[in-house]
Amino acid sequence: MRIDGLQYANWSEKIFRQLREGGVDAIHVTISYHENFRETVLNFEKWNRWFETYPDLIMKGQWASDIDTARETGRTAVFFGFQNPSPIEDDIGLVEILHTLGARFMQLTYNNQSLLATGCYEAEDMGITRMGKQVIKEMNRVGLVIDMSHSADRSTIEAAELSERPIAITHANPHDWSPALRNKKDAVIRAVTGNGGMFGFSIYPHHLKGKSDCTLESFCEMIARTADSYGIEHLGIGTDLCQDQPDSIVEWMRVGRWTKEIDYGEGSKSAPGFPAMPSWFKDNRHFGNIEAGLKATGMSADEVAGIMGGNWYRFFGENFGPQIK
Amino acid sequence: MRIDGLQYANWSEKIFRQLREGGVDAIHVTISYHENFRETVLNFEKWNRWFETYPDLIMKGQWASDIDTARETGRTAVFFGFQNPSPIEDDIGLVEILHTLGARFMQLTYNNQSLLATGCYEAEDMGITRMGKQVIKEMNRVGLVIDMSHSADRSTIEAAELSERPIAITHANPHDWSPALRNKKDAVIRAVTGNGGMFGFSIYPHHLKGKSDCTLESFCEMIARTADSYGIEHLGIGTDLCQDQPDSIVEWMRVGRWTKEIDYGEGSKSAPGFPAMPSWFKDNRHFGNIEAGLKATGMSADEVAGIMGGNWYRFFGENFGPQIK
Repeated sequence: MRIDGLQYANWSEKIFRQLREGGVDAIHVTISYHENFRETVLNFEKWNRWFETYPDLIMKGQWASDIDTARETGRTAVFFGFQNPSPIEDDIGLVEILHTLGARFMQLTYNNQSLLATGCYEAEDMGITRMGKQVIKEMNRVGLVIDMSHSADRSTIEAAELSERPIAITHANPHDWSPALRNKKDAVIRAVTGNGGMFGFSIYPHHLKGKSDCTLESFCEMIARTADSYGIEHLGIGTDLCQDQPDSIVEWMRVGRWTKEIDYGEGSKSAPGFPAMPSWFKDNRHFGNIEAGLKATGMSADEVAGIMGGNWYRFFGENFGPQIK
Repeated sequence: MRIDGLQYANWSEKIFRQLREGGVDAIHVTISYHENFRETVLNFEKWNRWFETYPDLIMKGQWASDIDTARETGRTAVFFGFQNPSPIEDDIGLVEILHTLGARFMQLTYNNQSLLATGCYEAEDMGITRMGKQVIKEMNRVGLVIDMSHSADRSTIEAAELSERPIAITHANPHDWSPALRNKKDAVIRAVTGNGGMFGFSIYPHHLKGKSDCTLESFCEMIARTADSYGIEHLGIGTDLCQDQPDSIVEWMRVGRWTKEIDYGEGSKSAPGFPAMPSWFKDNRHFGNIEAGLKATGMSADEVAGIMGGNWYRFFGENFGPQIK
């Protein structure tokens, strides 16, 4: 079973076919960065059209059992998420509405301060806000998973503690291995995995040691060491693959509508666009490389299967439905 | 089994308890008249709160099987609908979005011309519009039932013919019995029931012979005669109960935001408010009176059971899911 914990591709029939070639049973896709509620609904509509147009390649994913259906019918189940809480605007009632529409992950912040928490690019981290505490309870209640990939450290640790259900960092790597701002320090990973949460390893070059030149061996050895530290059952893949996106999209991700100036985020003035993916993971057809790389570290077949998808599958099964108290 | 094909009450714990006292297993409730998409979402949110607050009395209804669950657990399943297509605005993609949120009925018009069809108060009836034809196909595809209760005759007959699935008139009576503008002529009822559709009998006094003074005997005899003409399996109840609503609400229903002048609709300047309900049906505790009245006409127990809920149950089961071609 192969499950990718985060992608934001420029979707097309070509990519849907590559998902099938790569044996990808399920993906969590970002459908909103800075979109408000109505704009997010338009993005759900866009996916409804794709599901109608390509019924043999993809299907809507709502529950872990949809992954079983996808496997039985040779399709990829697509699960939805937001990298910012902008789709709920200032309305806690939209948490359940968006879950009903199919949202299964929501980041409490995207780099900046939000109404709920502090993003990883702010100078100060005030932790979870008043509204944030209410929204965490509501996300717990309905089964919308809290994702802290782009949040600041204190906010992330507080979210893990406040949440009555496991949370996730869908796409990042350990800061020890590659000290990027977006990579996560030991205390953060420990807080998330300690509450039963998941950590998805990113292949976005800015998160890799050596960036685009990072070797498969280095990436897989890092995963093996992370498993030793935090427990292999909490680990999965979250490639952050942004295939076929024009550079205008990475600018939208960073700048949205919140500034009139350019913000380069993880890039720089001399390299503002999307970085080149490493040679061993250019697109969805290359999941086999990661699987082989993990085997080469000496992991058992079961351990590799867990990281490639089994752990996400269990996590989806436990966390997408209503909270049982 | 007791199912009401339309209500628009001023919902409260009192009314939810009366639904239980009246043994009502399911109701179709109107949640939008003139509301746009975002306002309609707020109405879904309001119901989510009620489901959370009164889990022992009511539950969200999406499929006929939810009525079985409601009966097993002593609750009322609440199904949602709109009396106007305003929630989809000019965006056909919202048909599926709103179905996903739980909408199961949508009128193509409410008295006036809409983007889709002509309402029963217009002087001219142009039939189904260009967008209307597209929306009928989309409603058929996803399982959102076309309701023509407030539409003009030609538009209704065309909708019945264009639709590949049965349609409904959820709340009206035969024009032959009581010649109100909103009651339906023979050709209209024949078109709807002839395509497998449902006709729900209204107890809104403006639709009754003798209005608030209409007798239970007259109402039930009329149902028996309608069954003889069109087939009993196509008939149900759609009380149009607007319990506990202030008169400002009937003004909103009639006037919305489309005029600055008062429109009295079925009322009049001297009687602009909600009319008094007949003595034998004041609220949801009185469904037993209708059941007794139907038995008194000489109908068999099976026939009465069909009208009281069995026919809606079958119709819900066949028409709320995706179209099978």
